[in-house]
Amino acid sequence: MSLRSFGSDNHSGVHPKVLSAIAEANQDHAHSYGLDPWTKKAQDLFKAEFGSEAVGHVVFSGTGSNVLGMASALKPFQAVVCSATAHIQTSETGAPERFLGSKLLLVPPDLKDGKIRVTDLEKVFKETGNIHHVQPKLVSISQGSEVGTVYRPEEVREISKFCKKHSAVFHMDGARLMNAAASLGLSLREMTTDLGVDILSFGGTKNGALCAESVIFLNPALSDGFEFLRKQGMQLASKQRYLSAQWIALLEKGFWRELAAHSNQMAKKVLAGILKRVPDGKPAHPTDMNAVFLEAPLDVLERARAKVPFHLWTESPAGPGRAVGRIMASWDTTEKDVEALFKSFDA
Amino acid sequence: MSLRSFGSDNHSGVHPKVLSAIAEANQDHAHSYGLDPWTKKAQDLFKAEFGSEAVGHVVFSGTGSNVLGMASALKPFQAVVCSATAHIQTSETGAPERFLGSKLLLVPPDLKDGKIRVTDLEKVFKETGNIHHVQPKLVSISQGSEVGTVYRPEEVREISKFCKKHSAVFHMDGARLMNAAASLGLSLREMTTDLGVDILSFGGTKNGALCAESVIFLNPALSDGFEFLRKQGMQLASKQRYLSAQWIALLEKGFWRELAAHSNQMAKKVLAGILKRVPDGKPAHPTDMNAVFLEAPLDVLERARAKVPFHLWTESPAGPGRAVGRIMASWDTTEKDVEALFKSFDA
Amino acid sequence: MSLRSFGSDNHSGVHPKVLSAIAEANQDHAHSYGLDPWTKKAQDLFKAEFGSEAVGHVVFSGTGSNVLGMASALKPFQAVVCSATAHIQTSETGAPERFLGSKLLLVPPDLKDGKIRVTDLEKVFKETGNIHHVQPKLVSISQGSEVGTVYRPEEVREISKFCKKHSAVFHMDGARLMNAAASLGLSLREMTTDLGVDILSFGGTKNGALCAESVIFLNPALSDGFEFLRKQGMQLASKQRYLSAQWIALLEKGFWRELAAHSNQMAKKVLAGILKRVPDGKPAHPTDMNAVFLEAPLDVLERARAKVPFHLWTESPAGPGRAVGRIMASWDTTEKDVEALFKSFDA
Amino acid sequence: MSLRSFGSDNHSGVHPKVLSAIAEANQDHAHSYGLDPWTKKAQDLFKAEFGSEAVGHVVFSGTGSNVLGMASALKPFQAVVCSATAHIQTSETGAPERFLGSKLLLVPPDLKDGKIRVTDLEKVFKETGNIHHVQPKLVSISQGSEVGTVYRPEEVREISKFCKKHSAVFHMDGARLMNAAASLGLSLREMTTDLGVDILSFGGTKNGALCAESVIFLNPALSDGFEFLRKQGMQLASKQRYLSAQWIALLEKGFWRELAAHSNQMAKKVLAGILKRVPDGKPAHPTDMNAVFLEAPLDVLERARAKVPFHLWTESPAGPGRAVGRIMASWDTTEKDVEALFKSFDA
Repeated sequence: MSLRSFGSDNHSGVHPKVLSAIAEANQDHAHSYGLDPWTKKAQDLFKAEFGSEAVGHVVFSGTGSNVLGMASALKPFQAVVCSATAHIQTSETGAPERFLGSKLLLVPPDLKDGKIRVTDLEKVFKETGNIHHVQPKLVSISQGSEVGTVYRPEEVREISKFCKKHSAVFHMDGARLMNAAASLGLSLREMTTDLGVDILSFGGTKNGALCAESVIFLNPALSDGFEFLRKQGMQLASKQRYLSAQWIALLEKGFWRELAAHSNQMAKKVLAGILKRVPDGKPAHPTDMNAVFLEAPLDVLERARAKVPFHLWTESPAGPGRAVGRIMASWDTTEKDVEALFKSFDA
Repeated sequence: MSLRSFGSDNHSGVHPKVLSAIAEANQDHAHSYGLDPWTKKAQDLFKAEFGSEAVGHVVFSGTGSNVLGMASALKPFQAVVCSATAHIQTSETGAPERFLGSKLLLVPPDLKDGKIRVTDLEKVFKETGNIHHVQPKLVSISQGSEVGTVYRPEEVREISKFCKKHSAVFHMDGARLMNAAASLGLSLREMTTDLGVDILSFGGTKNGALCAESVIFLNPALSDGFEFLRKQGMQLASKQRYLSAQWIALLEKGFWRELAAHSNQMAKKVLAGILKRVPDGKPAHPTDMNAVFLEAPLDVLERARAKVPFHLWTESPAGPGRAVGRIMASWDTTEKDVEALFKSFDA
Repeated sequence: MSLRSFGSDNHSGVHPKVLSAIAEANQDHAHSYGLDPWTKKAQDLFKAEFGSEAVGHVVFSGTGSNVLGMASALKPFQAVVCSATAHIQTSETGAPERFLGSKLLLVPPDLKDGKIRVTDLEKVFKETGNIHHVQPKLVSISQGSEVGTVYRPEEVREISKFCKKHSAVFHMDGARLMNAAASLGLSLREMTTDLGVDILSFGGTKNGALCAESVIFLNPALSDGFEFLRKQGMQLASKQRYLSAQWIALLEKGFWRELAAHSNQMAKKVLAGILKRVPDGKPAHPTDMNAVFLEAPLDVLERARAKVPFHLWTESPAGPGRAVGRIMASWDTTEKDVEALFKSFDA
Repeated sequence: MSLRSFGSDNHSGVHPKVLSAIAEANQDHAHSYGLDPWTKKAQDLFKAEFGSEAVGHVVFSGTGSNVLGMASALKPFQAVVCSATAHIQTSETGAPERFLGSKLLLVPPDLKDGKIRVTDLEKVFKETGNIHHVQPKLVSISQGSEVGTVYRPEEVREISKFCKKHSAVFHMDGARLMNAAASLGLSLREMTTDLGVDILSFGGTKNGALCAESVIFLNPALSDGFEFLRKQGMQLASKQRYLSAQWIALLEKGFWRELAAHSNQMAKKVLAGILKRVPDGKPAHPTDMNAVFLEAPLDVLERARAKVPFHLWTESPAGPGRAVGRIMASWDTTEKDVEALFKSFDA
């Protein structure tokens, strides 16, 4: 059972401080379904992070957070507009379609940085008004992106302005927002509220929690009825205090940043070290946060991951004999882990 | 923050053994989404409890368990048949309708024992074949029931035979199956598999866990595709090891029975003690497990619950000036709690 | 193929005037999907009937009309409140649940007149605000009712006032609104707009059309986006001119009233004639419009309907050996048909 | 009101023979909801056309036919695989997502012939088995295609073999199957059943009917429960005899072929004539059936369609100053219409 993996930041464990917070919440009895003091405190911390207008609600899972956040703003004939590589499109087993009844309209991401561009959004929004077409109504971006990059504030603001202009809702999948914020050295608010994001899926699980996800309404008008939606959406925990306690552990005194900065730094170290060892290798995408996307000879990658697990895409556009490995650092990645990884790349 | 409550068994905390199991699972890295050793072990324990054919999957919530279990067996034009007071009808904010697209056809429960009868099911199944009607296809019962009673094995078997005869699926909402099994002194298998139950929503949260729910397919043919359904249904945890570890703690060496038996006993003690103190009081329903439903003068109930929380139904059929209180014991209800409750009933 | 039936008013044919209107619309080409002159004219006629604010849209079926009308006003966690015997509950194969994702909360109708009462609505609306419950948000009544009765204007207004008070939407299933209006001698507007109805399912098929159903928004704010919803709801006809032409035929110069009054009169004649012939018989419900509900000995009813078709409910509350027949007159019921029916009741 | 249009084949009228069939069905009374003799006859004619195993059901609309046909074969976590330009993707306002809850996985069509290729399907089916991905389960093609081309039998058979190999269902959107069959000179059965198609959306509205669509199960095992699904899907007509009568008119003695062949011929004539008049023009796609896709200078196209309506795509890949017009012939396109069109292209 002693796995050390670069496969995903959800292979990592739970930070001891989070476990302690859970244990501390295990006092006496508490009202269920979120009417407990820990939840109240977590909600206050959401306001402290995102602004006093922000309304945050705890849910179970990242998919739940994305789906319910979007559901709170969309009618089924209204469509989500997102990257063709967005997690909501590729990795949630069609949860948005089933629960929202909405179509996802796909925009091609930039091949290098994995981000979507306003010029591509514009093409999609031309469908507006045609009764035979779903109506684009919500733009969703992942911050950080699925390829380990981070939208810069001006890029987010440009999309935000586009949304306002088209009366569209701006949703951010922030499963790794903490890593993105640590990367840019900005506050969570500067990453979201200040840039015009309306709804945020805010995740803590990948950054040291056991199970801590949330939907944050930066535009509080959109939160109306969310508590009914959450229960109907099977995302309301009976003993919510134990989920909220995790949020308290992460958010108090900005502890999240420490963990996120560590995994980001580890990824940089990984990249530098591997590039030295693999002369044929190069980054498929910039390492803005905690993921290294390494384009390299397939046999090199396969040999390495037989020893230390990471993901491999053989259908990369990198040509025959080459592939892309996704090597992801976590809050608990150690120097020793990195050394073992380097070793796996040594011939 | 030092609440002691008889409001619900989800007001209770987490048993230290469960917390320890979570802490023990916090070793190194583990594969995510259920591909970890703890989940493997939990699934083996499900087989040990319910029979080697049983296929069990961990989910987040009781509502999720009910909805996904039923969804695995139904087309949207097929209906659930359940008690008008079933949790899936009254307390899940329409999650079944939204996610399944199915109608719930309601059967009146017996006023005293809260159970449904085959004679009432028969009336509903007469709709079979009429294209203007939804088609009854799944019968769901709650074991124990919403009014604190427990179906006897022969009662379950009768419903099971009815289901077989009508090619219907038999679903059991076992949010409190552990309490029911402890009450009857039967094994979990004797409560379910041996009686012809097809799909079980099996809950651990109310019996000492933090967040441990599951869907158990006693009829394994119905489990096909469930893993896709679970992900689409937003009930797949990324760090599932921490959920599975809770199941291990509860199921190993039959630890669950100890906790369930305790809460059942506490309820019996509560009932006996209150009846002594409240001459006007009488049980609205039999106390088969951990809930006391006390019919008593409204002012008596209101006075008591001002001191020690429990639920109150003022619209009871008990007549003017009277009401029904639901007083629920938990695995962590102490003698001191019971004394405090008794005191709240003293004038 | 020469059936004459009292089984339903949809066993009847199409009035020659409606067929002529279809043939007249068969000129040259026309823009599709409702952008044709006939649709424009039908929409103007809807305004003429219901008031200049009314926005009417043509759909295919009565179920489609009910479902899309309600869908335009509800979020899935919001519930429909209707009679336990409402067509949307009993006879649409769960279309509302599947398409809306909403639960239907049932109110017991008066056993005699089949109508729902505000006192019963009040009980349902007490669920408002509880996050574990669906939220009652739309009240639907059938005018005329499923048992052949007609709500009086003051009864409709009372429900309308209740809806306003509870911020609920008031929906009317008007599959037989024309019969109801003819029965009361009121205009369509006096039946609906003037009484505070928000959304009307307005049917013409049972009153001489081939396929003419519609959704009329008397509260036009609720019609936003309906054209997208209709297409997504599979209720938009490509060659809509032929549906709209039927509405023109029915609505122009109040032709609908002539047909509806005829079927109403025929039902009254049927009732009077049968009561003379069946001394044991009595009306199960008042014959306010075109349906007779006759409670009589089962053998008498069975003998009669072996000769002339009508519906039979053997599970009536009328006691052993007795049953209820539904005998429904149509716009094309002839004196000869009535005579044949009478003869079928002669021994 | 005297429009003559090449905008769509649903701008056309209803063939007099179809209107006569409707009038002939207007005899006496008939049982509703498809239990009438005309429906029986239409269903027999479906068997005569597609084989004795075929089970056909009449519905209202093409979108309804596509959605319900696919819904009969899919669970929500199973995906439709289709062309990025398929009608179900681009022109049904998200009806499949809303009603099925399924995702559509898109395959790029060949730019010239608009068809999808097995090599592209193969890429999509690699997702099979991954629980984070929707599971490809149904392949849908449009025959004829959205760009006026017709799959050749061997092309259809290749896709059919692919589906069998992957246990996938093969669906065909046959809104213009009649045109495609007339183009190839094959029987309807040779176009479908004999090539391994499982489910067919079979349309008559574009080929001379008023409102005649259907779902034909060539694989009859998939038709189980369809009648419940149709009613729940709001696609069951009460006076179905009038829809079925249209099918009788089209199918008896192969009348459909006469109409389809005419519109196909007219398109060929249109293409030849325009190419003579527009030296800069060329077909964007082959004119296999009744649609001409003309790539030409934008100003030429705009001038022409100011006089005679047809569709225009300005975002064609044809380069600046050029565009693509879709000019569609109908069963009722006359020589005079064609002459007027030609004239519109004369400078």
